[in-house]
Amino acid sequence: MKKMLWGGAFEKAPKDAVLEYMSKENAELDSYLIKYDILGSLAHVKMLGEQKILAKNEAEEISKSLKQVLYDYENGKFKLDIKLEDVHMNVESAVSAITPFGKKMHTARSRNDQVNLDMRLLMRDALLDVAELIIKLQKAFAGLAKKDFAMPAYTHTRVAQPITVSFWCESYVQSLERDIERIFDAYKRVNKSPLGACAISGTSWNINRKYTAELLGFESVLENEMDAIGSRGEMEAEVLFIFAELMAKLSRFAEEIIWFSEKGMVVLDDAYSTGSSIMPNKKNPDVLELVKGRCGRVYGNLVHVLTVQKGLMGGHNADTQETKFAVMSASDIVKQSLGIMGELVPGLEFDEEEMKEELKKGYANATELADLLAMNGIPFREAHEKVGKMVAQLAKQGRHIEDMNAEEINAMLGVELSSESVSNAIAFKKERLSRKVSVDEKWEKMIKEKQEKIVDAFNKLL
Amino acid sequence: MKKMLWGGAFEKAPKDAVLEYMSKENAELDSYLIKYDILGSLAHVKMLGEQKILAKNEAEEISKSLKQVLYDYENGKFKLDIKLEDVHMNVESAVSAITPFGKKMHTARSRNDQVNLDMRLLMRDALLDVAELIIKLQKAFAGLAKKDFAMPAYTHTRVAQPITVSFWCESYVQSLERDIERIFDAYKRVNKSPLGACAISGTSWNINRKYTAELLGFESVLENEMDAIGSRGEMEAEVLFIFAELMAKLSRFAEEIIWFSEKGMVVLDDAYSTGSSIMPNKKNPDVLELVKGRCGRVYGNLVHVLTVQKGLMGGHNADTQETKFAVMSASDIVKQSLGIMGELVPGLEFDEEEMKEELKKGYANATELADLLAMNGIPFREAHEKVGKMVAQLAKQGRHIEDMNAEEINAMLGVELSSESVSNAIAFKKERLSRKVSVDEKWEKMIKEKQEKIVDAFNKLL
Amino acid sequence: MKKMLWGGAFEKAPKDAVLEYMSKENAELDSYLIKYDILGSLAHVKMLGEQKILAKNEAEEISKSLKQVLYDYENGKFKLDIKLEDVHMNVESAVSAITPFGKKMHTARSRNDQVNLDMRLLMRDALLDVAELIIKLQKAFAGLAKKDFAMPAYTHTRVAQPITVSFWCESYVQSLERDIERIFDAYKRVNKSPLGACAISGTSWNINRKYTAELLGFESVLENEMDAIGSRGEMEAEVLFIFAELMAKLSRFAEEIIWFSEKGMVVLDDAYSTGSSIMPNKKNPDVLELVKGRCGRVYGNLVHVLTVQKGLMGGHNADTQETKFAVMSASDIVKQSLGIMGELVPGLEFDEEEMKEELKKGYANATELADLLAMNGIPFREAHEKVGKMVAQLAKQGRHIEDMNAEEINAMLGVELSSESVSNAIAFKKERLSRKVSVDEKWEKMIKEKQEKIVDAFNKLL
Amino acid sequence: MKKMLWGGAFEKAPKDAVLEYMSKENAELDSYLIKYDILGSLAHVKMLGEQKILAKNEAEEISKSLKQVLYDYENGKFKLDIKLEDVHMNVESAVSAITPFGKKMHTARSRNDQVNLDMRLLMRDALLDVAELIIKLQKAFAGLAKKDFAMPAYTHTRVAQPITVSFWCESYVQSLERDIERIFDAYKRVNKSPLGACAISGTSWNINRKYTAELLGFESVLENEMDAIGSRGEMEAEVLFIFAELMAKLSRFAEEIIWFSEKGMVVLDDAYSTGSSIMPNKKNPDVLELVKGRCGRVYGNLVHVLTVQKGLMGGHNADTQETKFAVMSASDIVKQSLGIMGELVPGLEFDEEEMKEELKKGYANATELADLLAMNGIPFREAHEKVGKMVAQLAKQGRHIEDMNAEEINAMLGVELSSESVSNAIAFKKERLSRKVSVDEKWEKMIKEKQEKIVDAFNKLL
Repeated sequence: MKKMLWGGAFEKAPKDAVLEYMSKENAELDSYLIKYDILGSLAHVKMLGEQKILAKNEAEEISKSLKQVLYDYENGKFKLDIKLEDVHMNVESAVSAITPFGKKMHTARSRNDQVNLDMRLLMRDALLDVAELIIKLQKAFAGLAKKDFAMPAYTHTRVAQPITVSFWCESYVQSLERDIERIFDAYKRVNKSPLGACAISGTSWNINRKYTAELLGFESVLENEMDAIGSRGEMEAEVLFIFAELMAKLSRFAEEIIWFSEKGMVVLDDAYSTGSSIMPNKKNPDVLELVKGRCGRVYGNLVHVLTVQKGLMGGHNADTQETKFAVMSASDIVKQSLGIMGELVPGLEFDEEEMKEELKKGYANATELADLLAMNGIPFREAHEKVGKMVAQLAKQGRHIEDMNAEEINAMLGVELSSESVSNAIAFKKERLSRKVSVDEKWEKMIKEKQEKIVDAFNKLL
Repeated sequence: MKKMLWGGAFEKAPKDAVLEYMSKENAELDSYLIKYDILGSLAHVKMLGEQKILAKNEAEEISKSLKQVLYDYENGKFKLDIKLEDVHMNVESAVSAITPFGKKMHTARSRNDQVNLDMRLLMRDALLDVAELIIKLQKAFAGLAKKDFAMPAYTHTRVAQPITVSFWCESYVQSLERDIERIFDAYKRVNKSPLGACAISGTSWNINRKYTAELLGFESVLENEMDAIGSRGEMEAEVLFIFAELMAKLSRFAEEIIWFSEKGMVVLDDAYSTGSSIMPNKKNPDVLELVKGRCGRVYGNLVHVLTVQKGLMGGHNADTQETKFAVMSASDIVKQSLGIMGELVPGLEFDEEEMKEELKKGYANATELADLLAMNGIPFREAHEKVGKMVAQLAKQGRHIEDMNAEEINAMLGVELSSESVSNAIAFKKERLSRKVSVDEKWEKMIKEKQEKIVDAFNKLL
Repeated sequence: MKKMLWGGAFEKAPKDAVLEYMSKENAELDSYLIKYDILGSLAHVKMLGEQKILAKNEAEEISKSLKQVLYDYENGKFKLDIKLEDVHMNVESAVSAITPFGKKMHTARSRNDQVNLDMRLLMRDALLDVAELIIKLQKAFAGLAKKDFAMPAYTHTRVAQPITVSFWCESYVQSLERDIERIFDAYKRVNKSPLGACAISGTSWNINRKYTAELLGFESVLENEMDAIGSRGEMEAEVLFIFAELMAKLSRFAEEIIWFSEKGMVVLDDAYSTGSSIMPNKKNPDVLELVKGRCGRVYGNLVHVLTVQKGLMGGHNADTQETKFAVMSASDIVKQSLGIMGELVPGLEFDEEEMKEELKKGYANATELADLLAMNGIPFREAHEKVGKMVAQLAKQGRHIEDMNAEEINAMLGVELSSESVSNAIAFKKERLSRKVSVDEKWEKMIKEKQEKIVDAFNKLL
Repeated sequence: MKKMLWGGAFEKAPKDAVLEYMSKENAELDSYLIKYDILGSLAHVKMLGEQKILAKNEAEEISKSLKQVLYDYENGKFKLDIKLEDVHMNVESAVSAITPFGKKMHTARSRNDQVNLDMRLLMRDALLDVAELIIKLQKAFAGLAKKDFAMPAYTHTRVAQPITVSFWCESYVQSLERDIERIFDAYKRVNKSPLGACAISGTSWNINRKYTAELLGFESVLENEMDAIGSRGEMEAEVLFIFAELMAKLSRFAEEIIWFSEKGMVVLDDAYSTGSSIMPNKKNPDVLELVKGRCGRVYGNLVHVLTVQKGLMGGHNADTQETKFAVMSASDIVKQSLGIMGELVPGLEFDEEEMKEELKKGYANATELADLLAMNGIPFREAHEKVGKMVAQLAKQGRHIEDMNAEEINAMLGVELSSESVSNAIAFKKERLSRKVSVDEKWEKMIKEKQEKIVDAFNKLL
């Protein structure tokens, strides 16, 4: 077995099982971090050179070697070795195999600030990716809204009142707006550099933390070093909460489409359904069901990271190693789920006739009628009761409001309203609820700006 | 039993057990909402009057009656009756007992937007209260930082490196800054009016939603009515996540002080300790332990609300009634916990001598020594290994770095460094880690502004 | 303020806010524990007398006083005073006010084993209560099964195949069987006495733990004292998991009935529905929605207790005080939810005609037809494909399998089956799926036995 | 792209992204199920042959082919193809490539009962594996108990009273006993066959469910088919709760050893510690910290499965596909964590001197002294107060009880006890707390019996 790089004070090397327990999955997950780790090291080494902590040629050779490792990685030639524990040790070891100065690249740094840095770089990208996918989904809803007609709105899973397709689409667009807001709120906090916090208390080397932050495209530095290290877990939890809430929203959408399609009010593209291996009559909304199931997984990821934080002392603790897994797993799920929903929504075919039928069966115009009575001077509570009784009576007879003319309605309600007003009330007028749905362009612009800033910074390092 | 107000379409009234299941706790919790509900109704009725939906005298009489109910409530004369289900029905019933126009106050409104409104008013206050208490806690840390000396920082629960009391205090101040940020981020989203969204799709009455929003001190209106109603649960979850993360942070603080006091490095004021009923030697940090235990409760509240949201169709569903409980319970716990910590921190007595001893026993100056070697040209990895071996050897002998002079150290490390540089390295110089801790005043100002805006709005209504 | 009973080593008494933080809710919750605490003390004191640790007259006077306190409690005259922290101190104080020997009743005991005892007595009762309510619910399903006819079974929320009402009822009866099993499995572990474990390591007094266990109707003693104390939280979590899983099951039932009633296949008794304050057409399944919402609360209670346990050292820690709340809250919810469901089920009116219609529209007999083909030599995969294509074609035409005769079916499938076999396949024969549903009597007997054992033990103490 | 096997009623095949979303991870996870799936199919096909549903030669050829696929799998030649969705379709497809009768093997079965079967076979093994590892850990504690001496017990993280090493070990052995009990309680419920439940309602084929249950070593059949299918998720949650509680217990152990080793009372084998890449003085208990962190992951897995179940209709839903992931992930973690702890415990070196020192500093004999006073007629509450004051006074003077003779103690307490009794009380006599720790052999026997029954059954099938 290879010698552990931190082994100075030790007599025995960890046993293989221990190594596996500590590092196997960790090393696998760290493949998500390779490029971030190398970029972070490029910035760190550049700063060490500028500050004369490394000689010019040392810094240059290390940088060249780091770029070589990145190149090798992109060409499938650099793979993480679990015996070297983590991505940091793997990269350092690969660099050291190219240049003897490799041993100096870890000067004035610790794996504690390094992994914190890598994860912030990863979460920064993940947040922007997710924001992009949300916008794609919003646009899909905006597109869907164009073919507008009446549809039922439900409360308590019962037909409540008539709305329109565009109104329903708008509700999702505006709701998703909050998720984007949350992403950019969190982005401010994620986009700060922990590099230079070292193990816990910074270093007596004359480093320049502001400079490395700039090189990596960060907005600023996490000043207090102990807080920088201790923020691990906290930022992960915030990102996971945003993802959990997003999945909750997608689970709502999934539930609605599952039932709308079950009722025939919407037809799911075959591409998003599956059949049964035993029942030839089935067309199952598997993709939507999986979205609901995976909502549970992301909730679990959040609980995981919250649990890790409970009662944990400040500074760095190995307990937080686990938070990588939770973020990476949730991030994949959220991106895939949003991606699929962004494809599925444009293919939804809403059925105007079925929706009309559902509205009728649900006596969806009853509220409008009660409002009409109230507008004509009957206290709302009384109006509500009158119409309620009429609906109960019609339901017993298997009739609907639309089956009656104004006179009959007047008679059943014991009122004398003009035919015109009654007809208007029961004929759903969609003007008020028909919306022109558009997607706020500012977010897209903001994502682009932020992504460009990152790319620019990275290009300068490479 | 009293007649249910929504009973038009029904033949039988709910059984008592059902009523209890649905409304008992709900009505109890609603006592938190009484004042918000009345204020919301005052705004609603004022708008109905302005819009001529109610006649001037109707609106005035209802307003007068609402104020009477508020007055009665404040004088302990108005209590919620579970038979009337919830706060909304109770208030309406009390108003109707004073004026016959009471029956008209629910025009162009539903309990769906009403409860959503009440909860947003409550959460708005809760967020500001919590922000205030965080600042109080930050100030307590800033105060504690004034008596500054060396203290150990831990990683992996082991002494790692020397820091200072002020450095440690600063880490909490900066960390809590993020919680305040999160509160104001969420505040933007909470501080929007759902009133006028009615059951799910607004109303055909000619209401003015912008006006009621202004009357209640909101920043703006939640436009899409379906989204406004559907946002219930989502805002609650966001508030609960912020609270959960705060409790995680307090649980960290609790854990640290529990162990610092166990080691004698800090003395807990007797006021925050308890004894044992059986062991006369015990001084238990009960308050801090309870903070950790209650962290679990707030996590549970968050999981509760996330679970409610999973797979729930849009619109209003009774499932969300439960989210009141979670928010109110967590809100109380967070406020109390922060309040107590804000009192406890100023009473902490850090013990300089014990901290010095802990640093020594932990070989906390080893990193500084390794850095010294590295600064003198030895690659960091080698320097690390040399010092590591020295520490291991000293530990076996029961000696500490401070017990040796520069010569001995040079000999053990096999190097030849100047006595002065060695002495400097092992004598902890606190300059770099001594911080002047202050609390950003902008937040306090911001809280005040927002609270004043609310109070102004409410005063105008009353 | 009253003097704290454990205050020997202290100079200052806790401040009021601290006292409130530590004890207010605790003391409120402890009202659930009063009778258990007194019974536990009666057993303890009786044993102390038998072991000559207390003099005969001391033990007798204390017992008499304890019974007096119980009597006062039952007559509303004994109330918990938060200044005395918890139920244990309150009872001791009340006893001491009657007899000077009260000060001796805590000999050879600690509050650590005492609260653990009280909670086990409470959980023991709660488990049996819940088991009883499950059986009541099972019987309700068995009763419902008596009026048997065809109903659709769903997979993926789509009509899958025909089943019968009795088959559906049986599925719940058998499923709930597992919950009862789990209750009795946990009961074995709950029904052990921790009394005498004292603070953590027992006592050097010559106590008789087996005797107090018998007096309180326990099966045996938790031998290792440290384990006895440390089991707090673990037993609570196990009970909460059982409750969480039960609520998950009730949430499934709620979801099914919500959708069955939405489709008109079942009519919910008005007693379990509510109306809308704005929409006269609505009949909302509030009670069922609340069951789903409260499922989330019990999940939260479980997460709460799991969180408390994470990373907690052995022995007693104040963190676990919080677990009382979780168990008591969940226990109330589960009992109420089961109770209401036990009332609601007998009132369900299943509609045979609507169910038949649903089966037809769902092509529910397709599998039977595919099986028929397979029984006639066509490989199942091919049979499945043939019938699948036929169903797709019929769906396009808006026709159903029942609309066709055997000849047409043969033609569409390209097969030549006997008319009789085809008719049989598509006419749902309910024999195989019609079940005689009964409830296993052994559980009811077991509950009774256990309850009688408890009552007998308690009666002897009183 | 290959044709989907359930594609009869469909026009378009799912897009690649959808396929990936639905099946990629699923297919990866299913590699855990390959052997179980093949064994299940062997039993199913054997039964189909006995029942004449398949011809003798058909059944034989399919069996032979299944064994061939198993052989190929074990030799790395059979790999799951994501295009074939899951393990069931992959195996069927591989069999069909060998024999044309492959198409008939799915007769009278559905993937719904098949995956339920596979997961029960997997959980059955996982439970027994975990039970074995628990016993190994118990034995490690029993071994550690052999070198017995005084050690401190903590309550509220403070030294409370003296115990012994063996007493502490016994507490873990007895505590883990409950986990084993829970495993066998759940085993009863897991060890039942769902095979033959088909999609949801069984089949009209003349199958023999009892026979396949016997062939697979099950105890019995899950009778109601709908319940059998619907039990998916429930059994997973029960297994996950057991695992979560186990991890909570390991997190307690980890926390204790982390602090015992920090205090020098126990030395962690180097094999289970790591160093720091920056601080040469560190010896970090990473493995123990990871156990705590992974406790969070298993909690998350449980929350995941509970969330999936909430509000899910009966029958099969794709949402539950996700539960595979949670069980497999948790199962790996629990097995590895137990395995590592079973290795770590025997290597713990407890330090008698350090423990004595800790006892002394913690005034651990105070309770014994108070008890002595009480035994001499002073009411316990007074005795407690007297000793409490003495301890407070000594602490101020920096002295310990052991530093004083009986006379001094009498004087400080204001009592006149015999020197001998005082000396005895303060000299910790370990007899009462020294335990002979052994591990109950019945569990090991029970595991063996169950494992042999499974192996026998499987061998007969192969």
